[in-house]
Amino acid sequence: MNKSRPEIESAFSTTDVSRQPASHQILTSARSGIFLDSWELTHHQLPLQTAATWHIKKFKLHGGKQEGVDVIEVNNGRLRFAVAPTRGMSVLEVETHEARLGWESPVKEVIHPQYVNLQNRGGLGWLEGFNEWLVRCGLEWAGHPGRDRFRNHLGDEVEMNLTLHGKIGNTPASEVEVLIEAGPPPRIHLRGLVEERMFHGPKLSILTDISTELGSNAVRLDDVVTNHGGYDQEFQILYHANFGAPLLGPGARFYGAIAQVKSFNAHAARDVKKYHEYAGPKPGFNEQVYCLQPLAGTDGRTEMMLQNSRGDRGVSLVFPVEQLPCVTLWKNLAAATEGYVTGIEPGTSYPYTRRLEREAGRVPKLAPNQMRRFTIDFAIHGDLQSVQSAVRRIQNIQAQTAMVVDGERVYSPVF
Amino acid sequence: MNKSRPEIESAFSTTDVSRQPASHQILTSARSGIFLDSWELTHHQLPLQTAATWHIKKFKLHGGKQEGVDVIEVNNGRLRFAVAPTRGMSVLEVETHEARLGWESPVKEVIHPQYVNLQNRGGLGWLEGFNEWLVRCGLEWAGHPGRDRFRNHLGDEVEMNLTLHGKIGNTPASEVEVLIEAGPPPRIHLRGLVEERMFHGPKLSILTDISTELGSNAVRLDDVVTNHGGYDQEFQILYHANFGAPLLGPGARFYGAIAQVKSFNAHAARDVKKYHEYAGPKPGFNEQVYCLQPLAGTDGRTEMMLQNSRGDRGVSLVFPVEQLPCVTLWKNLAAATEGYVTGIEPGTSYPYTRRLEREAGRVPKLAPNQMRRFTIDFAIHGDLQSVQSAVRRIQNIQAQTAMVVDGERVYSPVF
Amino acid sequence: MNKSRPEIESAFSTTDVSRQPASHQILTSARSGIFLDSWELTHHQLPLQTAATWHIKKFKLHGGKQEGVDVIEVNNGRLRFAVAPTRGMSVLEVETHEARLGWESPVKEVIHPQYVNLQNRGGLGWLEGFNEWLVRCGLEWAGHPGRDRFRNHLGDEVEMNLTLHGKIGNTPASEVEVLIEAGPPPRIHLRGLVEERMFHGPKLSILTDISTELGSNAVRLDDVVTNHGGYDQEFQILYHANFGAPLLGPGARFYGAIAQVKSFNAHAARDVKKYHEYAGPKPGFNEQVYCLQPLAGTDGRTEMMLQNSRGDRGVSLVFPVEQLPCVTLWKNLAAATEGYVTGIEPGTSYPYTRRLEREAGRVPKLAPNQMRRFTIDFAIHGDLQSVQSAVRRIQNIQAQTAMVVDGERVYSPVF
Repeated sequence: MNKSRPEIESAFSTTDVSRQPASHQILTSARSGIFLDSWELTHHQLPLQTAATWHIKKFKLHGGKQEGVDVIEVNNGRLRFAVAPTRGMSVLEVETHEARLGWESPVKEVIHPQYVNLQNRGGLGWLEGFNEWLVRCGLEWAGHPGRDRFRNHLGDEVEMNLTLHGKIGNTPASEVEVLIEAGPPPRIHLRGLVEERMFHGPKLSILTDISTELGSNAVRLDDVVTNHGGYDQEFQILYHANFGAPLLGPGARFYGAIAQVKSFNAHAARDVKKYHEYAGPKPGFNEQVYCLQPLAGTDGRTEMMLQNSRGDRGVSLVFPVEQLPCVTLWKNLAAATEGYVTGIEPGTSYPYTRRLEREAGRVPKLAPNQMRRFTIDFAIHGDLQSVQSAVRRIQNIQAQTAMVVDGERVYSPVF
Repeated sequence: MNKSRPEIESAFSTTDVSRQPASHQILTSARSGIFLDSWELTHHQLPLQTAATWHIKKFKLHGGKQEGVDVIEVNNGRLRFAVAPTRGMSVLEVETHEARLGWESPVKEVIHPQYVNLQNRGGLGWLEGFNEWLVRCGLEWAGHPGRDRFRNHLGDEVEMNLTLHGKIGNTPASEVEVLIEAGPPPRIHLRGLVEERMFHGPKLSILTDISTELGSNAVRLDDVVTNHGGYDQEFQILYHANFGAPLLGPGARFYGAIAQVKSFNAHAARDVKKYHEYAGPKPGFNEQVYCLQPLAGTDGRTEMMLQNSRGDRGVSLVFPVEQLPCVTLWKNLAAATEGYVTGIEPGTSYPYTRRLEREAGRVPKLAPNQMRRFTIDFAIHGDLQSVQSAVRRIQNIQAQTAMVVDGERVYSPVF
Repeated sequence: MNKSRPEIESAFSTTDVSRQPASHQILTSARSGIFLDSWELTHHQLPLQTAATWHIKKFKLHGGKQEGVDVIEVNNGRLRFAVAPTRGMSVLEVETHEARLGWESPVKEVIHPQYVNLQNRGGLGWLEGFNEWLVRCGLEWAGHPGRDRFRNHLGDEVEMNLTLHGKIGNTPASEVEVLIEAGPPPRIHLRGLVEERMFHGPKLSILTDISTELGSNAVRLDDVVTNHGGYDQEFQILYHANFGAPLLGPGARFYGAIAQVKSFNAHAARDVKKYHEYAGPKPGFNEQVYCLQPLAGTDGRTEMMLQNSRGDRGVSLVFPVEQLPCVTLWKNLAAATEGYVTGIEPGTSYPYTRRLEREAGRVPKLAPNQMRRFTIDFAIHGDLQSVQSAVRRIQNIQAQTAMVVDGERVYSPVF
């Protein structure tokens, strides 16, 4: 309870905070016994080299299944986002004057994990709490439910039922802190350590970091997954980023630099040639999922974008392909009341159940004390010019490589 | 989080509150971020046209598995009842000077849903929290556990394990409010909105309303179930009202205007001719369940009553047969320590597992935005005369119709 | 909610507190509506016939999965222990200047039961919260997961999936109190009532009592299990006491007066002749489990001890063999990060799944209102002399009886 904090320190040093932070506030620490029920910091209290009227605020939700959920809001003066430490540091939404990243889920509250039985409905209980803009899937597994038979570290054959998208999105953060880099430019980091530990099981953690430069239209995820156990440990991570109206709508488009498109299911195969196009909400629409293999530019990074129908609003993702080689494009163009939404989901894996992903060689392992870092830059584009610049950057990455759309039959996960 | 409240408003207009309420207090609102830990309102603070010394009080329970459970007590000057918003607006007990509606369950605390795993014991986890006078069973399903295979709204065949009596009784209310009609006569309403929402699943809610006229010996349930989803949605509701000693005892009797009595199980079939009679507590008694088909009077409503052995105390239920066409009579005349109790349970269905109820045509559907209303009037009778008046009313409904007791073999649910 | 407290009173009278206690403080009472969020009592406030600077303190943990967990610390002036009422009165650790009873689990927080789904991983969810020095396993069952088919009290054949080590360690205490006997010698008792009640299920409780004489190096467990139901009720209890470094280490030794040693699993059988010896942490070590049949001395009690490699530190257990006839010795000499630990686990049973234990005749029953008491005295030995005295006492009990080491093949649980 009063131990030193080696993981958080070491992970901290992997980020770009090369100087002393201008401010450092621990909001929650299971180890040090720190817990602030509510907290606020604003530009009035901490002068920084910026004109941005920023603030950060922690508060608690009440009522129904959200009773007792903590939320932290960060406003960088131009862009606002909200994170739920109680739900694994999921990002509830991101908003600027121009656009909102997020969607209207039929789940209306920010559900406390105590009300989520992941085993419900044959392992689909995760869907009872699903309404975030961005939720991490993982860490021991990240994909679809299924019975998995595998050898554990002792060589014994073990069987277990996996539940949809793993446990990390329904695990409360053990350590939460705010760090502000003085800059210039100044940058606010909100960090949380979420642990997936079990005796005779995984000893994984993820140190999540979401940060934003003051006055910018962008957020950066910069996470580190660590194996604290004594054995090699499988893990998976998938960033389930979800977008609804008004960014999504009839005529909206997905752009990506893609080597190959494969269809995850039969519904997807039917429309694979239009995998990047969006129609409006349609009652009875059955979800379509595509497995994309992203291309890297000269710096090793790929870029993707969702643009609205008029092409004057968009959101782009940039990330190293080596870190997240699998991108799942999820289209759920159902009636608004059912959730009209698309997911752009970079991951270590596709969402097939772990047994299949393992056979396909897409379940990485971490050696004892090994870490892996995952960074994604999200930017909101608020005008035609900014959207078109992103399109050109994506086309430049694609330039030398033909995109193979191989999705007219359903993709066999093992290839 | 700061949305308008269309459902609660629309449902509100379905009730008899035709004028501005004399008082309106929101105790919990997940949408508006309102939460009062404790609250009280008494006749001293709000003068009404009544001599009743009424009060309403909200407080929190502590210790064991009831830590953090909210309770609201309403005292109308003559009758007192207690509701647990944390447990789906279940009514813990109703009490007047003459009688107490409720029972002595072996479960002693008001169990917080966080301690109930509905999947325990092969789907019987609900029994770990069962001790209310009245608990609603539903909404997606309301009966016994069982594996159900059905077509979902997309036409896919889906399988899932249902758990006993559904989830709504272990779901905390999202919105809770007190409304007082000025009258005359003045009436206190306690309302709660409980939601059963899931992505790729049901989007059902129930707006519960329990009300009582000041100074009366009666309470009225007036609930509205709504389908917020984009597809037709199956639902079930069953009002599990439970009665123990001293109302229940050797010589107590059930009265009902009944078209047909069928036996749910073999134990029941043995004693079907005495289905309406009660013996005292008996160790080793095995529960007996009867499926009753109620008769409607000229106003479409039926009446039922449980009276004590001396016939000078009773409780009656009045409700429209069209709303709740299935009544389950549950006799668990076991030793006091095991729960000596009888249930009178009006519902849309009998408690067979949903697969069987569907085959029997007893699982209704709601179209998108469709609502269904359920009203039950409960009255406590404190003397011989009042009890006998109820008996006569019941006999009048029965008058033209013979009661068929067809329960000597176990009833096949599909008929 | 405002009932009298018959169980706690009657159980109270079975202990050695024959006079009025010098102090009696209720910290939690679900029945009486008492709950103290924090509380402290010290030698300054209550003069006793002792030089010991004792104190008792209750506080709450925060962050991650330990949010809201209550802890009570007792310091007798020489020895300190911490108990978690939220986790079934488990003892987190015991410490003197000379030694610490406890271990370094890969689970770092004191996990709130709301985050433990016992059904996870095929019934191994218990391991997600396992890090205490001493956790009770029970009460309806205490051993390994498994499907159990048995006749219930009504003669019906019932099937259910048991989960590892039962539910009691993840059940919050309903009643918690501190009692101080004036003595001399004065003794602090910390008591908690933990209930395992269910409609159509067990009605068991355990009144736990951990006490310590002021200024001593010892703690005493003195628990009473009661059947509050109307039928005979099976139950099991196993005291899972766990010891890690530095007491445990290469060269550490287990001493016990033992009639017979049997191997629980193949890994154990291989090394059965060295069942009482300990090696250092070894990555990939597979747990070894031995079933010991303890011998009683002339007073009916047996003694066991774990001593460190130098023989100058040890911990001993003394308990009546009739109460706890089965002792499980668990060796998990794995890498430190995986949990380097040994368990000495007196119980009514061995940890085979209940179906097997029942066949072997090791699942006792309690008649209605019957109680069974379990007492274990733990002492920390801080020097060579004290350790050797314990060894001599153990050898005296063994003196007349040969120890049969019959573990070269894996033990069949039914014998």
